Order: sequence, then C-alpha cells, then structure tokens
Amino acid sequence: MEHMSLDPEIAARLKRNPEGLVPAIAQQYDTGEVLMLAWMNDEALHRTLTTGRATYWSRSRQEFWVKGDTSGHVQHVKSVALDCDGDTLLVRVDQVGAACHTGERTCFDADVLG
Amino acid sequence: MEHMSLDPEIAARLKRNPEGLVPAIAQQYDTGEVLMLAWMNDEALHRTLTTGRATYWSRSRQEFWVKGDTSGHVQHVKSVALDCDGDTLLVRVDQVGAACHTGERTCFDADVLG
Repeated sequence: MEHMSLDPEIAARLKRNPEGLVPAIAQQYDTGEVLMLAWMNDEALHRTLTTGRATYWSRSRQEFWVKGDTSGHVQHVKSVALDCDGDTLLVRVDQVGAACHTGERTCFDADVLG
Repeated sequence: MEHMSLDPEIAARLKRNPEGLVPAIAQQYDTGEVLMLAWMNDEALHRTLTTGRATYWSRSRQEFWVKGDTSGHVQHVKSVALDCDGDTLLVRVDQVGAACHTGERTCFDADVLG
C-alpha cells in the first residue's frame, strides 16, 4: 500500500482521526440527495481522485472498498471537496442504483426520528 | 448533563465512536446543499430533536454548541434521520446565512480537490 501516492499538498491538509480516516459524505451530484457516509484513508482518497470510482476504507472488513464492485451500485465521481477544517470530504457522485445495502436509494431513507 | 433524556428507543440504536459521538451531516432542506459536518452526543441529539435548533457537541471546546448562538447563523431543524447502520445522522435544516465560520455558505465551497 502506497500511502505516499496521495498528492502531498492534499495530504498535508487532511486531518485524520486516530485510525487515519476522514469521513466522506457521498452526495448525488444533480439531485443533491445525501446518499451515505463512509470513511477514507489517504490511499482511498487518492484512488477516488484518480480512478473516478468512489473508493472507501471499510472499517468492518479493514480493506479498500470500491463502491459497487460487488453490488454493481457504482459511484462515478464528479468532484471531491475538503471542508474548511480539513477533516471531512464531500464526494459528489453519480450513483448507479441504490446507495444503501438495504436496497434503499440512500442510507437515510428508512429511519426518520421524532 | 442528562444523558438519559434521549428517547431510550433511539439511544439503543445509536452507534457512537469511542468519544460517545456520532457524525451529523447538516443539509439545507430545500436546496439539498450539504452545509457542514459536526458531531452529536446523546444529549445534543435530544436537544436537536426537542428544541428545533441544531445542537452539536464541540470537540474543540468540549461543550454543547447551539449553532448560531454566537454568529446568528441559526439552523432551524426540519427533520433528523438515522442511517442504516445507526452511526450517522442526517439533519435537514433551514440555515440562516452562512453555515461556515469562514463566511462561505457551506464548509465545502472553498476547497475542491483535483
């Protein structure tokens, strides 16, 4: 794994949690739907920026997770933005099919509180 | 601080990080803009659900942060959803003025990568 493959200028501005991860919000680029939140390390961000496919670090499986590789529910990356604090990413994507593993379009559709 | 004031049925489903926090994505309810990401503990979520004002836990100041109390840039809560894993909140709000402390409308406006 080449941690150094991320642009050093970007890497210098990222503020990671103790596990070396940054939360990444995936948003449908045209409708504005918030699809899901996942996590990226430096290499996942590098791959997301260079391959055009949203790529996360799976905390449960401890491995890279190219969204859609098993489900077909690919996220084509339109843009990636870093927030003012350098500790959150906003990934605008074109989501194929359902973003959520439950089959819902987004991970926030099923459980509205209050 | 009354940790137990959050609805126990909701509290039982929340998956918190080691600091007892859950990331909360704030989204403008009508335009879909992703405004910012902040963090909530149980009490902040309870206050958000019951007061109609988005209330976070400030990790830097280690205190509750009622968004807009000092800046005037209040977030009026429209709905709160929990994701499929129970570890992320989506807070739909009506944002008064700028969400970002820099004066930008959102915290993701200034730094698009690549």
